[in-house]
Amino acid sequence: MQQTLPPATVGRLPRYLRFLETAECSTVSSEDIAAGSGVNAAQVRKDLSYLGNNGTRGVGYQTQTLIRLLRRVLGLSSLMKIAIVGTGNLGSALAGYSGFVNRGFQIVAAYDVSGGKIGRSIGGLEIRPIDRLESDIKEMGVDIVAIVTPAEASQEVADMAVRAGVRALLNFAPVSLHVEKGVTVRQVDLATEFQILSYHLANRI
Amino acid sequence: MQQTLPPATVGRLPRYLRFLETAECSTVSSEDIAAGSGVNAAQVRKDLSYLGNNGTRGVGYQTQTLIRLLRRVLGLSSLMKIAIVGTGNLGSALAGYSGFVNRGFQIVAAYDVSGGKIGRSIGGLEIRPIDRLESDIKEMGVDIVAIVTPAEASQEVADMAVRAGVRALLNFAPVSLHVEKGVTVRQVDLATEFQILSYHLANRI
Repeated sequence: MQQTLPPATVGRLPRYLRFLETAECSTVSSEDIAAGSGVNAAQVRKDLSYLGNNGTRGVGYQTQTLIRLLRRVLGLSSLMKIAIVGTGNLGSALAGYSGFVNRGFQIVAAYDVSGGKIGRSIGGLEIRPIDRLESDIKEMGVDIVAIVTPAEASQEVADMAVRAGVRALLNFAPVSLHVEKGVTVRQVDLATEFQILSYHLANRI
Repeated sequence: MQQTLPPATVGRLPRYLRFLETAECSTVSSEDIAAGSGVNAAQVRKDLSYLGNNGTRGVGYQTQTLIRLLRRVLGLSSLMKIAIVGTGNLGSALAGYSGFVNRGFQIVAAYDVSGGKIGRSIGGLEIRPIDRLESDIKEMGVDIVAIVTPAEASQEVADMAVRAGVRALLNFAPVSLHVEKGVTVRQVDLATEFQILSYHLANRI
């Protein structure tokens, strides 16, 4: 059933899942999903057909069945463990975000280089020194490292994480990371989001 | 020359621009841009050809010409003014992010509802009460409102911003906003990024 999905489809699945997890009906139509996730209904049907679920004509999709399918495809059947490196405002926001556990994630540790910060607490976690990162990743079984450091430190952190066996990085530093094949990097650049909005403002019809 | 660009192309243009603004050579090849922005070279050439710039065979692209073109297409010829609503860790991270001015943006004001926070300073801005938002938007000429509130407050803030004439919203709250036609909303959902990484971990070959 599931081959490699188009990247844009993968990007929409979390939105469908978020809507379904708050939906209060036992069946939903593609129009319901569309309205709840800001995607058009034809696209919803196409994306879900890639997963082998075409719903039932005139009825729609079984909500719980679809949730289970999406969670399985997204690899969320068990909690994914996240380590955060960098505990400025943005790192603290991540560490303190209570919505992660419901969405399949658990923040297991937070790291910083700054001597003054070590041992302080954010989001219920004690900040650990960065030189513990590699051994902790192996011991705790960290799946994903979120890099929320200054730009100049991000590549070094990525290298440490990959050396310790991590295969997925979420990078908030405004720098392209170089990683070996088989490691997935998602880049979150806040200025990029604003520039995309700016494009739409500048090119309104 | 410039019709409506494919959304995926729009999403890549900021990455090209970020690379070019740090490039130290007067001409760059599509391979240089590709390596610096994590996109393949054929895609770079295709995206730039949409903008009417095909470079010069065997030479590449004039760096400064390309920067000017990208800035113009992205509407960054003058500074875009951003207001931030919500001053928790994430709002504070946005307000304190020094990289925005170089990228075409200026944070002009920050808002909160909490009585205790009003008048305190984040990122050099005094936190203002939310009931000033609508009049400030008109007076200051705010272009973009970043919504960094709890989920239950985000729609109300969006409505206020749109009423005051804002046509671009960046929403960090994990809720789909309903806005009138002609208003662009970009949704930043941190759990979504982690779920996309999770997909890649779960579906490695």
